[in-house]
Amino acid sequence: MKITAAGIYKSIEAIRKQAPVVHNITNYVVMNSTANALLAIGASPVMAHAQEEVEEMVNIAQALVINIGTLSEHWIFSMFKAVHQARKKGIPVIIDPVGAGATAYRTRTARELISGGQPTIIRGNASEIMALYDDRSKTKGVDSATASDAAIATAQKLAETHKCVVCISGATDYIIDREKILKIKNGHPLMTKVTGLGCTASALCGAFAAVGKLPFAATAEAMAVMGIAGEIAATTSFGPGSLQTNFLDVLYRLSEDDISKRLKIEE
Amino acid sequence: MKITAAGIYKSIEAIRKQAPVVHNITNYVVMNSTANALLAIGASPVMAHAQEEVEEMVNIAQALVINIGTLSEHWIFSMFKAVHQARKKGIPVIIDPVGAGATAYRTRTARELISGGQPTIIRGNASEIMALYDDRSKTKGVDSATASDAAIATAQKLAETHKCVVCISGATDYIIDREKILKIKNGHPLMTKVTGLGCTASALCGAFAAVGKLPFAATAEAMAVMGIAGEIAATTSFGPGSLQTNFLDVLYRLSEDDISKRLKIEE
Amino acid sequence: MKITAAGIYKSIEAIRKQAPVVHNITNYVVMNSTANALLAIGASPVMAHAQEEVEEMVNIAQALVINIGTLSEHWIFSMFKAVHQARKKGIPVIIDPVGAGATAYRTRTARELISGGQPTIIRGNASEIMALYDDRSKTKGVDSATASDAAIATAQKLAETHKCVVCISGATDYIIDREKILKIKNGHPLMTKVTGLGCTASALCGAFAAVGKLPFAATAEAMAVMGIAGEIAATTSFGPGSLQTNFLDVLYRLSEDDISKRLKIEE
Repeated sequence: MKITAAGIYKSIEAIRKQAPVVHNITNYVVMNSTANALLAIGASPVMAHAQEEVEEMVNIAQALVINIGTLSEHWIFSMFKAVHQARKKGIPVIIDPVGAGATAYRTRTARELISGGQPTIIRGNASEIMALYDDRSKTKGVDSATASDAAIATAQKLAETHKCVVCISGATDYIIDREKILKIKNGHPLMTKVTGLGCTASALCGAFAAVGKLPFAATAEAMAVMGIAGEIAATTSFGPGSLQTNFLDVLYRLSEDDISKRLKIEE
Repeated sequence: MKITAAGIYKSIEAIRKQAPVVHNITNYVVMNSTANALLAIGASPVMAHAQEEVEEMVNIAQALVINIGTLSEHWIFSMFKAVHQARKKGIPVIIDPVGAGATAYRTRTARELISGGQPTIIRGNASEIMALYDDRSKTKGVDSATASDAAIATAQKLAETHKCVVCISGATDYIIDREKILKIKNGHPLMTKVTGLGCTASALCGAFAAVGKLPFAATAEAMAVMGIAGEIAATTSFGPGSLQTNFLDVLYRLSEDDISKRLKIEE
Repeated sequence: MKITAAGIYKSIEAIRKQAPVVHNITNYVVMNSTANALLAIGASPVMAHAQEEVEEMVNIAQALVINIGTLSEHWIFSMFKAVHQARKKGIPVIIDPVGAGATAYRTRTARELISGGQPTIIRGNASEIMALYDDRSKTKGVDSATASDAAIATAQKLAETHKCVVCISGATDYIIDREKILKIKNGHPLMTKVTGLGCTASALCGAFAAVGKLPFAATAEAMAVMGIAGEIAATTSFGPGSLQTNFLDVLYRLSEDDISKRLKIEE
């Protein structure tokens, strides 16, 4: 299926109309900005992490987003409970392996969530994605391989093994499944100076998947919207503070015209 | 007592002058925006949730605000300790039953906090308030009852049973006690696209109650200030990002004239 | 060493170039704004608090910032682990004793972190700093002593006992070690209406210390940058909401000229 401005805008209209419930078990740093981005695009965010209620909360949700940015034992336990309930119920599961590779604890937790949880979409930056596959993958890379090539190879293996979509985000976003690769070249460098926009991207993948888009298209559309909204927001921003504010305003007002003028996709 | 612009502004002046300490045990999503709103109106927010210190923190506070938005066992235990200390000390207790009705865990916790904690003010949206009364209340509603009528009936029962003020917030805010109902018709639809403005409203109820306003008046005044500040902020906002920023600026600068020009109360 | 605009700007350039990893174990209220301020100045914030990973995270960091704003048992345990690892590795440790003096739990935890952790820099307001020394210090103060004098005396004792730098922040910031006192008179009253700018100051001390500045100079430079950025941000702010946004924009764009025009230091 081709990713087009018209298709993306149709998904946004569906989100605005259906206001799908997106259940987030995410990190302390970004909870506020994630909730605000989901509201701005038209979704209904919920945040709940207690083991006593995560399954019930999953039951009223149309997508589940798991983000390991500020981990601890109780939270991990609830993440597994929520993921299992989401698979049972059949709603999309998005996993954001924040900081995988930085500590063994994160790497192990991210891998276990992925191997045990059958994610629909995994989104991370290149080093996080590379940390998700078994360590031998590192040694397989030839020395001349760019970080990107190695990351793409890992993403393809993950997509193959777990039958999911993998997104490597960066200046160019790669959307990868077992059969294809799509590149999205939207975005703005100032976005890297605002905390949690990667986490927001994962949450938006959840919103697009929640209204019935197939995982590959949902991921591509969400990443395109992130990049385009960031570009437009940057045009009126003086720095990362105003970018954060403007980004939410732009998400809320995004039109089909905004998207069609800026969309940069390469297949 | 009549709610007037002059009375509201007098309370704001008292808050700005006395800078009452408002102790919040609230959810992770809104902690930052709640603290900022309390600072903007002139109060002194504190946030502390450890069982080792909540009682001592209550002892230096002039109001306690409990919000169950992101619950877990340790936090619930501390909420009960704090509520009991607040009752012992005689300071107002505001309870915000975020998500009551969404999961059994939240509904049960909210009900127990209310039945055991003798709240001064309960503030929630219609579905949260309806979830607070015993389940039979649902079956008592006739089919033609609008959600509002049923919610108002529940609020009246809660107010009667627990001798407290109940606020049902929404496009119209209802302030309810055993004897009367007041409607506040201020506010702006864009406010629903910013996370945590309901939580902010509960925190402001705490600030107004902290400077000695009686619970009914404190709730009415806080809700009017929320709605009016939201309306003014919306006039210069392009979306939910700038609304959040402007809302804090407006709270900080709110004048008697701003209030008297916009206040919409119906008894 | 003299604190000059040129020296401060050189440190900022080093931060922007090296993007040092600053590991924060901080409070829920300010995590987002702290991360954004560190990004805006050019550093790489990480936030991790699980005992399973804090030591490993310290190992990839160039500074550790401990902030006790929303304490609980598990977090305290991790704070100690992180502090010990930081001392072992030899990276600077900044301690922000938020609310010390407000509850016995905070006071005790702050003191234990300081006596056991050999901090490089301690930053707090006058009442927090005064709460850090043993209680007899109170009785030593003569009645005519202003709060400032007593706080400075306590800071000097702390600096002597723990061989560290102590910063008392306020309208005038005092940077104190065993031999000298420096005063910084930058800043703007509106900054007190934004939550967490004190916590941001502590995090910036970490960023300046992370690029090799000696502790006294790092603290002085960080506090000067905070004050100057706040002053510039206030010139275009309508209240605390826009101040928060503008502050990040200004941090991101701060030039040597901005600093040299405004720097107010007294030795």
